[in-house]
Amino acid sequence: MGPGPSDVHPRVLAALARPTVGHLDPYYLRVMDELQSMLREVFRTKNRMTMAISGTGSAGQEATVLNLVEPGERVLVCVNGVFGVRLADMAERAGGEVTKIERPWGEVFPVAEVKEALARLKPKVVALVMAETSTGASQPVEEIAAAVRDAGAMLILDTVTALGGIPVEIDKWQVDAVYSGTQKCLSCPPGLAPVSFSDRAVEKILKRREKVRSWYLDISLIANYWGSDRVYHHTAPINMTYALHEALRLVLEEGLDACFARHRKNHAALKAGLAAIGIPYATQAGYELPQLNAVRIPAGVEDAAVRTALLERFGIEIGAGLGVFKGKVWRIGLMGYASRQTNVLVLLAALEQLLAEHGHKFERGAAIAAANEIYAAQG
Amino acid sequence: MGPGPSDVHPRVLAALARPTVGHLDPYYLRVMDELQSMLREVFRTKNRMTMAISGTGSAGQEATVLNLVEPGERVLVCVNGVFGVRLADMAERAGGEVTKIERPWGEVFPVAEVKEALARLKPKVVALVMAETSTGASQPVEEIAAAVRDAGAMLILDTVTALGGIPVEIDKWQVDAVYSGTQKCLSCPPGLAPVSFSDRAVEKILKRREKVRSWYLDISLIANYWGSDRVYHHTAPINMTYALHEALRLVLEEGLDACFARHRKNHAALKAGLAAIGIPYATQAGYELPQLNAVRIPAGVEDAAVRTALLERFGIEIGAGLGVFKGKVWRIGLMGYASRQTNVLVLLAALEQLLAEHGHKFERGAAIAAANEIYAAQG
Repeated sequence: MGPGPSDVHPRVLAALARPTVGHLDPYYLRVMDELQSMLREVFRTKNRMTMAISGTGSAGQEATVLNLVEPGERVLVCVNGVFGVRLADMAERAGGEVTKIERPWGEVFPVAEVKEALARLKPKVVALVMAETSTGASQPVEEIAAAVRDAGAMLILDTVTALGGIPVEIDKWQVDAVYSGTQKCLSCPPGLAPVSFSDRAVEKILKRREKVRSWYLDISLIANYWGSDRVYHHTAPINMTYALHEALRLVLEEGLDACFARHRKNHAALKAGLAAIGIPYATQAGYELPQLNAVRIPAGVEDAAVRTALLERFGIEIGAGLGVFKGKVWRIGLMGYASRQTNVLVLLAALEQLLAEHGHKFERGAAIAAANEIYAAQG
Repeated sequence: MGPGPSDVHPRVLAALARPTVGHLDPYYLRVMDELQSMLREVFRTKNRMTMAISGTGSAGQEATVLNLVEPGERVLVCVNGVFGVRLADMAERAGGEVTKIERPWGEVFPVAEVKEALARLKPKVVALVMAETSTGASQPVEEIAAAVRDAGAMLILDTVTALGGIPVEIDKWQVDAVYSGTQKCLSCPPGLAPVSFSDRAVEKILKRREKVRSWYLDISLIANYWGSDRVYHHTAPINMTYALHEALRLVLEEGLDACFARHRKNHAALKAGLAAIGIPYATQAGYELPQLNAVRIPAGVEDAAVRTALLERFGIEIGAGLGVFKGKVWRIGLMGYASRQTNVLVLLAALEQLLAEHGHKFERGAAIAAANEIYAAQG
């Protein structure tokens, strides 16, 4: 129940351990085709260039930046947490002229602020994080995406923690490049990065004046293997592909909308439970991610001691705060397979015990009661 | 039995499917420490900076190049197959001024030729492939490594197909940066890239004037997670790490020297068998890799038809030729767990059948007899 890797579904672990075949084996090529088709459903896109990069989510992140940004191009990066900072760093390494706009940690960007920056800077590329894993903030995307397109720029969208947890609408929003990870709401081990590029992004990549600064992440080369030509690029991570294939099957079996509703319900129960024992969220009200709950550590309670006790005595991992949230915030993941009533109740029970031991004042049993009220109401 | 991914040991598949823990879980940190220590044994090095990059072998390759080459530096790349070509491409993307020296496919570099180029070009970095997976050539390294060091340059060594199959001596040869893959002689699925950097390479990296062109592959950042600080960089590929950990345990249980001897024996049997039915090697005599057998397709025999029949009728994969070897050469892997008497005999039996069907003339049974003679002699 940390900020990822999340719990992996047993069916995904079983798929991971299937015998390794060759990367040009007809069976494997079929798995790849099915994976692409399922990824398009999950991203809600028809983009031909939809596939999985052979690295973790950060590799997908850098793949979108290195391919879309040419040296000397102006890039606007929206920064309200760790992953925005990282996008800016990557865009600089890609040779971009980077300008950041910033919001305090935990807040989201109002569309007016992005519009102002677009008018002032006239960037070629804009990068935005949809679900900031470091702050639990859920950034509304639709209007910003429209503003970016109106300004003639291309939008890179981070959906690492978003995908499978809240609605991601790549075609409806006309996003040009999107990346995600396997280890969050897809309930698959870390190791692959789903990505998708719009046709106009692909056109830009194919017309680049200078080669992409990484051979490994060069989309024009990778696409020749995922496409019908099957040109050898690198040896694909066969078993991780099996795992992601199975993870996507699980999400689509449940149905995306049902999956989002489950995430919302368990989040509501956790939130009610925490509120009942005096633990507020660190995220701007109304913009809390259901899958990543960033909550304030009560005064007088020792961060590391509680997390260690949770792990050692209850077998539960929750995440520490990063950056300015270090020591002040816990990050509780309710992602994918981990978004379950059992997990919410066990965590609240364990937290009640540990917080009482640490002298935090609250009514014993209140968290469990409040969470159960939500479950009783929502079924 | 292709050029990789090779057969994965059942114990490695079982390790792969263990429950995914967090990337800062104390258990996982112990697995990482043990993995580093075992990798040092397998690379035969004491290099502190020895770890696994979160991508396939090609990601490790690019990590060594992007970190060691600064823009504007002269780089000498020895090219005698696909992977040398790729090193040159990567060094150009890193901003290096690249000069290639070339040998025909299947041949290795004599030390004099490298010395001449070193004197002429005075490069800062030299890149060399030890086991060319595209040609089956086994490049002697020791003298070239000494010449590179004498010339004041740093050596990047590709050991993707070498590691675990033939002796790799990083400290003895004083190699500055080495990379490998998991899916060759380590009998692990593809997805991680073992790397090791000498202290002087690390010093060069930490003194770079310009940031490494990839954030994901920046060794100075990655090292802070593998080192004692455990600073979050990216979410580690947890399950692949379990798998590599188990694969290294298997290699060390057998013992490196015993493992190399097994590779040599099965290679000798295969070679004798193929010779008996008129199939020669495509590699310079005396420099054939035991783990990657590049052999000439007999005249009149159709490449793809035989490979397809091997897969469909016998469940055996062998590799096609790449580049100038396309349609002319088969690549037969006897790597790691796949280097077994059973595999050699079944492949020879299947090949005899298919070659006879394709009208190739030879004495039926000769391949099996010749291979068995080697096994009888070598035990």
